[in-house]
Amino acid sequence: MNYRYKDFIIINPLMRGGIIPKDISKKLCEEGWMDAGYNVCHDCIEGQSGLITKPNIKSFLQEVAKFFGGDAAHHTFGCRAAQFAVMKTIADSEMESKVIVVDPNSHYTTHIAAEMCGLKTVEMPHTGHPEHRVEADKVLEKIEAVKNPALVVMTHADPYHGNLAPVEEVGKICAEREIPYMVNAAYTGGVKPIDMKSFNADFLTLSAHKSMASIGPLGFLVTSSEWSNKAFAKSKTKTDWTGRAFGKKIPNIFGCSIGALPLVSAMMSFTHVKDRVKKWDEEMKKTEKFVESIENLGDIMLLGERPKGHHLLHFETPLFWEISKTHKRRGFFLAEEIIKREIVGIQKGLSKHIKMSVYGLPDPDIKKVEDAFEEISKL
Amino acid sequence: MNYRYKDFIIINPLMRGGIIPKDISKKLCEEGWMDAGYNVCHDCIEGQSGLITKPNIKSFLQEVAKFFGGDAAHHTFGCRAAQFAVMKTIADSEMESKVIVVDPNSHYTTHIAAEMCGLKTVEMPHTGHPEHRVEADKVLEKIEAVKNPALVVMTHADPYHGNLAPVEEVGKICAEREIPYMVNAAYTGGVKPIDMKSFNADFLTLSAHKSMASIGPLGFLVTSSEWSNKAFAKSKTKTDWTGRAFGKKIPNIFGCSIGALPLVSAMMSFTHVKDRVKKWDEEMKKTEKFVESIENLGDIMLLGERPKGHHLLHFETPLFWEISKTHKRRGFFLAEEIIKREIVGIQKGLSKHIKMSVYGLPDPDIKKVEDAFEEISKL
Repeated sequence: MNYRYKDFIIINPLMRGGIIPKDISKKLCEEGWMDAGYNVCHDCIEGQSGLITKPNIKSFLQEVAKFFGGDAAHHTFGCRAAQFAVMKTIADSEMESKVIVVDPNSHYTTHIAAEMCGLKTVEMPHTGHPEHRVEADKVLEKIEAVKNPALVVMTHADPYHGNLAPVEEVGKICAEREIPYMVNAAYTGGVKPIDMKSFNADFLTLSAHKSMASIGPLGFLVTSSEWSNKAFAKSKTKTDWTGRAFGKKIPNIFGCSIGALPLVSAMMSFTHVKDRVKKWDEEMKKTEKFVESIENLGDIMLLGERPKGHHLLHFETPLFWEISKTHKRRGFFLAEEIIKREIVGIQKGLSKHIKMSVYGLPDPDIKKVEDAFEEISKL
Repeated sequence: MNYRYKDFIIINPLMRGGIIPKDISKKLCEEGWMDAGYNVCHDCIEGQSGLITKPNIKSFLQEVAKFFGGDAAHHTFGCRAAQFAVMKTIADSEMESKVIVVDPNSHYTTHIAAEMCGLKTVEMPHTGHPEHRVEADKVLEKIEAVKNPALVVMTHADPYHGNLAPVEEVGKICAEREIPYMVNAAYTGGVKPIDMKSFNADFLTLSAHKSMASIGPLGFLVTSSEWSNKAFAKSKTKTDWTGRAFGKKIPNIFGCSIGALPLVSAMMSFTHVKDRVKKWDEEMKKTEKFVESIENLGDIMLLGERPKGHHLLHFETPLFWEISKTHKRRGFFLAEEIIKREIVGIQKGLSKHIKMSVYGLPDPDIKKVEDAFEEISKL
């Protein structure tokens, strides 16, 4: 079972922020971290991964919370599990409403997490084609229409166009009305500087394998101190015959969400991650330049807001759509032609709209990507 | 951040079945599988990991189901998430009762999963010290006392003593009464031959990082055809403004439970796993011999049923307890002395009772473990 894309340039926008630095993956391999499925548990005393100090998961979680401007953090089985923990917290709270207000650019996992917890999502409109922007006054209108929603969710950078939601303004609206507020930072936390206090957010959900240079599945839930006791509440079970209790275990994250290698990779990558967010503006400049070169190829237009506030790019590509009409591989030609050039990440079958990213790529690799699209545009 | 136990012999009984064969971890490193958090998604067409054919996750899941005697399988974020999916299925079903009957040797995750889904667990008694055996007639008594429980759960081999529960007899009892039946095979599936049809089980939960030689977190839920549509029901959400639906996503497993490296490791290890279960009797003989040599050291007694039906060993060790009373490191001496001898896996702080396993270890390594305990017994 070979990996088909060894040493390819990855341009899948959902993966770019998750690429594991070569020196880290080398270390993970060489140092023996791959020997057993949960070898961070060797020195677990308390029966809760968040309390392990060798390796120092406990202080790492505190660092993660601090880095994102929060008060408490736990690691989860990906951002979807972090969102589930939030929804579960809300569903179990005393709020009467089971309706949550969610932006229309949200990831599917937000809706799945809500569905799992018996919450109903309602969306406000975005500004429509081609920008698809979410505006704070529309969020406010929806909040007022719903009356006392149980939660408001904003997707910080969205997975469709890489637009940045007005997270600060919505945070103010929620704070004034005392509505719990979650920001899904799966696509931003770990690439762009984030301070959830400036968002007035109660919950921040993160994806380590999407944006924190980590092996998956791994995510984090960061909360304010106000919500941490609820989100990370300990088990209340006491078994009837054996009388066992599990007072260190946190049900909202399955007791503890152990997974050694992903967690170790995130811990090793964290210095790199803290460093790279400082270079966000530089990355955005590279992204703008890349957009220009792709649009210059012909009938291609970037969707979403401009200038870009995020590295995820969504292009409308009539140029490639035209080619696909006569190409023997039809809509598959684009992904396949890109792969021929040792680049991977264009969704198979798509040629009318495509998503990509060059986040974190060195200039020569970006040039290779530009050249590849230029060659293909002339097919 | 160095791994403290590189090339140590691991005797933690929860880890032995999860050890990744050296050639597999080498392959994972060399072939580039560690480059991105979810690189099995490059060729995803349908938006559901269970339907990916490059690499062939779809056929792998079918193989997993078949290997364990089931009809359908999905990968999950560990066995705890598989148990959650079962509990959620039961909680969402039309059964009136929210009470489930669980064996008293169950893992804590069974109770956490129940707690997450609003189900109440009740236990039948075991036979008490030193055997702690679960007997089918006690299970029946509890089922009758509860009247129509929503689910019966048996922990195939338990995490306390490695006893085998009477899964076939309980299966018959459940089948006759049409009570849904789950067997938690976290400690057996992947080391011991299992046919869930012979158990009459509706659900089998598995841990890849505990017993299937895999990187964690990864588990599997295998179901009968009767329950697969319920357990793996697709999302019913339709968003109100964007009108999005997520018809390929399975809420009980978070949409899809992607995590590339753990899944790839399990796929690569599967041939090895299928092969090694055939050597179970041989492993049990080695285990019995090891028990004998440890008991021969002095005041030490194996707990749980005899002969052993599983590799997990739990010893009562007054011999070490006596030493700890005068040792300057007190109860910590045992784990620390073992570590000095490049062996890891005795829970820190324990000397009165200890758990371990030599499953899958070559004879010279078992000898090293025996020698280590002998030396320590003379401290």
